[in-house]
Amino acid sequence: MKNLDIVETKYFTFAHPPHRLKLESGQVIGPITIAYETYGRLNETKTNAILILHALSGDAHAAGFHINDSKPGWWNDMIGPDKAFDTDKYFVICSNVIGGCRGSTGPSSINPETGKPYGLTFPVITIRDMVKCQKYLVEYMGIEKLLCVAGGSMGGMQVLAWMTEFPEKVRSAIPIATTLRHSAQQIAFNEVGRQAIISDPNWADGNYYGKKIPANGLALARMVGHITYMSDISMQKKFGRLKNTEFNSEFSIGFEVEKYLHYRGNSFVKRFDANSYIYITRAMDMFDALENVEKRNNLERFKGDVLIIAFKSDWLYPAYQSKEIVKVCKHAGINVSYCEIESTYGHDAFLLETEEQTHLIKNFLKRVYSGIKDERTFDSGGP
Amino acid sequence: MKNLDIVETKYFTFAHPPHRLKLESGQVIGPITIAYETYGRLNETKTNAILILHALSGDAHAAGFHINDSKPGWWNDMIGPDKAFDTDKYFVICSNVIGGCRGSTGPSSINPETGKPYGLTFPVITIRDMVKCQKYLVEYMGIEKLLCVAGGSMGGMQVLAWMTEFPEKVRSAIPIATTLRHSAQQIAFNEVGRQAIISDPNWADGNYYGKKIPANGLALARMVGHITYMSDISMQKKFGRLKNTEFNSEFSIGFEVEKYLHYRGNSFVKRFDANSYIYITRAMDMFDALENVEKRNNLERFKGDVLIIAFKSDWLYPAYQSKEIVKVCKHAGINVSYCEIESTYGHDAFLLETEEQTHLIKNFLKRVYSGIKDERTFDSGGP
Repeated sequence: MKNLDIVETKYFTFAHPPHRLKLESGQVIGPITIAYETYGRLNETKTNAILILHALSGDAHAAGFHINDSKPGWWNDMIGPDKAFDTDKYFVICSNVIGGCRGSTGPSSINPETGKPYGLTFPVITIRDMVKCQKYLVEYMGIEKLLCVAGGSMGGMQVLAWMTEFPEKVRSAIPIATTLRHSAQQIAFNEVGRQAIISDPNWADGNYYGKKIPANGLALARMVGHITYMSDISMQKKFGRLKNTEFNSEFSIGFEVEKYLHYRGNSFVKRFDANSYIYITRAMDMFDALENVEKRNNLERFKGDVLIIAFKSDWLYPAYQSKEIVKVCKHAGINVSYCEIESTYGHDAFLLETEEQTHLIKNFLKRVYSGIKDERTFDSGGP
Repeated sequence: MKNLDIVETKYFTFAHPPHRLKLESGQVIGPITIAYETYGRLNETKTNAILILHALSGDAHAAGFHINDSKPGWWNDMIGPDKAFDTDKYFVICSNVIGGCRGSTGPSSINPETGKPYGLTFPVITIRDMVKCQKYLVEYMGIEKLLCVAGGSMGGMQVLAWMTEFPEKVRSAIPIATTLRHSAQQIAFNEVGRQAIISDPNWADGNYYGKKIPANGLALARMVGHITYMSDISMQKKFGRLKNTEFNSEFSIGFEVEKYLHYRGNSFVKRFDANSYIYITRAMDMFDALENVEKRNNLERFKGDVLIIAFKSDWLYPAYQSKEIVKVCKHAGINVSYCEIESTYGHDAFLLETEEQTHLIKNFLKRVYSGIKDERTFDSGGP
């Protein structure tokens, strides 16, 4: 399949003082920079824009290749010419969340007031704050209404936040492998990750920039994460009880699965900031899409179509949580479709099961987009 | 229900040099002390002895109360007068495993050759080494053949090791919520726990005795453990998204489930040794009940009855693993019963679902024990 050509990350800065952004917590921050990428071309009527929302460890680089880089963006199999999010037809945007560490303003950014990294002085960030920043970006591009918002895992939470915060700004939504709110188990796993970081003496209350970073703690958090992203069966298929003969001391790595977890943990440390991990997981845990009457009412104002996707072996965001989203959408009078994809990949399936997702999403978007074109034909067809 | 009275831990020391114990690794160690408790009375023919085998964090104190202690042993609901393991009928033994830290020789014990704690100089311990030490204890008590060996989780692995190491020494076996061998996922979770300990700077290559202990690392290991011992639904029932208002800073505990995990982690540190955690989890990961032809042949020599119990919501030791044990027992020509108990408690069910287990185990033991009595009646009934 054809890939996108070379792509590059762009940056949008807004909320310049004194017009700083008011966050959900009531705290203010500014200026804010949001890293983003775009693929495909925005049409003249600006009706073909799709916003892709990333998961905990994702970033703005969703598809294509950066110059001199052999590894494509994190959802490259889904975004490109003739792919699920077809860049020959649609204008696809992906931005890094506020609080992140991949180009957007976050705890590792320099606080202009002090000239030093924010660290823990960075304000608490919520999923709705992430979405609010995306709205500024989309408005800056002159887009009145998005054709679709789509994403898996935390990306799916952002989809739900778009639906309840800006119901009139979205024509359709695709929440994948996600939940209205974290269960006790999901919070528990995140807390283990945070605690691993905080327990690392190098963390130093978040003031580790320019010094030794809490690499062990962050790697450990990622190791726990990886177990929850896979399934019992996918781990068994991939590693089973294979020994790793390179390591034979009593306490170092003895099984292949251990080596893999260490490898994934250590690579993560090179590209992710420990404080961002804490802030973002906290945002996920605090999120409750329908926490009050206002949010429930907002959802009823959403008039678009919704496609909800879950995966059978996903035990971190189990299908029952997606079915709850289906239920509240139905109650809100929303036109919703639900599909549970057979997969053994666990939560990772949203990144790996591209064929089935492509089929579903392509048809869904085609229908939504042709609806808009029909509207236009009808509008301009009058005298 | 009536409980046992005051009980106390006793100690058995063997393998005095030069007659040290040869371990599965080929290394030797001695002397070895094994902490144990007994409940009920051994009958004259010594045919009513049941050996209870503990899980990762268990110890010899399985039932009754220690003097001045308000908390009973870890399986008190199952062991006592008229309970599943009826101390009015049976003589129940429980010992702390070698490698442990609750009275048996382990990494925190003093190496008589150096006068210092073993630390990482303690030899690698396997599940079969644990069982070998138990056999010395049982022989010391003059017991020729155990009426039953029973245990859950790692206790169940020891049951399987008894069946394949000393098939003639056991009349019946009850492996509960256990597996023939760890899957990649089970190894992965254990590795996270080990890594948490090893990453704690206080661990100091295992030489922390008399100094600051790796409390953060061990607590973190236990936190991960606790998530895997519960189920999604049991965590949701117990905690849901309850906030904990005592803690409201951004990064400290905010949800009740987090507070619980911290509490369990911190209490564990007071009673468990970090090096024992590493040694014992490694023993579990390395164990493979049927790793070679010899073990398979040994299993065919086992002529007793087997009762296998699993729990529906146990995702750490899923029921399919128990069904694999059923299958190999059937192939070995063993008389085996299997029961999958409906429970929402997850892996913890083997400690909590006492009513259903009591029913099953009581009847099973009654049948096995009456078989022995019939044998005796027959033997002594001749001219």
